[in-house]
Amino acid sequence: MIDELVKQITEKNAPVVVGLDPMLSYVPEQVKAAAFEEKGETLEGAAEAIWQFNKAIVDATYDLIPAVKPQIAMYEQFGVPGVLAFAKTVEYCKSKGLVVIGDIKRGDIGSTSTAYAVGHIGQVAVGSKTYRGFEEDFVTVNPYLGTDGVKPFVDVCKEENKGIFVLVKTSNPSSGEFQDRLIDGKPLYELVGEKVNEWGAECIGSCGYSAVGAVVGATYPEMGKVLRKLMPKTYILVPGYGAQGGKAADLVHYFNPDGLGAIVNSSRGIIAAYKQEKYASFGAANYADASRQAVIDMIEDINSAR
Amino acid sequence: MIDELVKQITEKNAPVVVGLDPMLSYVPEQVKAAAFEEKGETLEGAAEAIWQFNKAIVDATYDLIPAVKPQIAMYEQFGVPGVLAFAKTVEYCKSKGLVVIGDIKRGDIGSTSTAYAVGHIGQVAVGSKTYRGFEEDFVTVNPYLGTDGVKPFVDVCKEENKGIFVLVKTSNPSSGEFQDRLIDGKPLYELVGEKVNEWGAECIGSCGYSAVGAVVGATYPEMGKVLRKLMPKTYILVPGYGAQGGKAADLVHYFNPDGLGAIVNSSRGIIAAYKQEKYASFGAANYADASRQAVIDMIEDINSAR
Repeated sequence: MIDELVKQITEKNAPVVVGLDPMLSYVPEQVKAAAFEEKGETLEGAAEAIWQFNKAIVDATYDLIPAVKPQIAMYEQFGVPGVLAFAKTVEYCKSKGLVVIGDIKRGDIGSTSTAYAVGHIGQVAVGSKTYRGFEEDFVTVNPYLGTDGVKPFVDVCKEENKGIFVLVKTSNPSSGEFQDRLIDGKPLYELVGEKVNEWGAECIGSCGYSAVGAVVGATYPEMGKVLRKLMPKTYILVPGYGAQGGKAADLVHYFNPDGLGAIVNSSRGIIAAYKQEKYASFGAANYADASRQAVIDMIEDINSAR
Repeated sequence: MIDELVKQITEKNAPVVVGLDPMLSYVPEQVKAAAFEEKGETLEGAAEAIWQFNKAIVDATYDLIPAVKPQIAMYEQFGVPGVLAFAKTVEYCKSKGLVVIGDIKRGDIGSTSTAYAVGHIGQVAVGSKTYRGFEEDFVTVNPYLGTDGVKPFVDVCKEENKGIFVLVKTSNPSSGEFQDRLIDGKPLYELVGEKVNEWGAECIGSCGYSAVGAVVGATYPEMGKVLRKLMPKTYILVPGYGAQGGKAADLVHYFNPDGLGAIVNSSRGIIAAYKQEKYASFGAANYADASRQAVIDMIEDINSAR
């Protein structure tokens, strides 16, 4: 799947991913009104609103982008109907040929991580049959529990030709509280980065990159530079660009000399583009067109940095 | 909610929690056969099987125990039908008066953690209405992202009178890989423990314990002893007893002198008790009775340690 991701990034000349993190406040009134009319001001109505919102944005952007990254929390908050909207979104994006990165940040003890892995990127056995519970191509994984919490995901990646991105240095303001602390003179995120190399060593695709990637926030460019060199075969998923403050110029060192090695996410900056002054002329009615323009602008901006 | 948990622990004289982690391999053949007969060998059939399995165990044990801890991964692996079985299990346990600890190990950047918190222990707004997506009383939280990943959960705890347990030292074999590494002479888990104290300082219940608890595995008793002293007002959720190797004698130091401060989880040891030689005489048909006996034995064992 890392080969498919790199192929699409290369073909579309777009090392970007659109974060499908639909807060209800991003969804234009007319979309909410139609969904509430059909399903009521209920969890089902909210789920319908975010699904219709997603669908229009995907329809308007799928030809430009290699991948989407739905953030499952934004769906899970609406309970079971929300989780159903997540599953539908994943399925729809795959039908449009997109690589789907499930931003689930799971991680647990071994047998439990196995359950998450088979549920999201693998197959679960039910009697004599097997099924896919959810159908992402990649998921994000939290490393706090160490190797036996991550390995089950890696094993499923190998069996299923899927991938993961392990949290190394996250984009949020307090990520340094634990991640930056020095251990034998090295910050924790470097130790995690070294482990990412180890975990990924057996899953190098024909593109030269591993199916085990890393999450490194755009908001910490100096650390990104160090981590890029430390993990040469690791694809880096970069959150924090745009609304969180990361700029393209900061991202130069997240790419390898081959112009590959990083894929930059924007969520709010794309899906709620119509709310920005820059794209306000589209109007709320044409929110998906505003998102398309924001994608075009983002691709140009990011390509200037690699 | 920490007051309610402590009240039930005291009244039932049982500092234990039953982990509802229903692997399909734990479910007796007759339960699976009935579920598959009704819903087919499908995700729905698997979800029905684990729900019926859970229900019988809860019916057989709820009068003895203060709390249950469903592990959401075991449900999520069956996709949306599995998540529905999770929601039903939570609801049913609450109808039986049990405190429900959702073992979800979520944690993300601020706005995303907020979505998880409102979804699992709070209320989400949909237009002019509010709903509860899931309805746990406590959830487990991963601290890797630092304060701004945890604080949204704490805020919702305060508003909703709910609680969390933050992963400090997990029970799995490789938990030491990062958690035990020394930072300024102190292991990472102690730094996390200190933060748990800080996060919980504003949520001390009338029982004297905070709504912000900690997860400390039974498999590391020496570290449990240190963490008990470091976090005097923190309730400790203790996984790893029984099947993972933790023994009651190891747990003496997880309790405070008041006999409180810790609640010990057993999952497989209780819900799959009928598979153990010790309880084999119950037979698979009476698996719930076997679970009840295992709960009685566990309570006696744990009470010998406090």
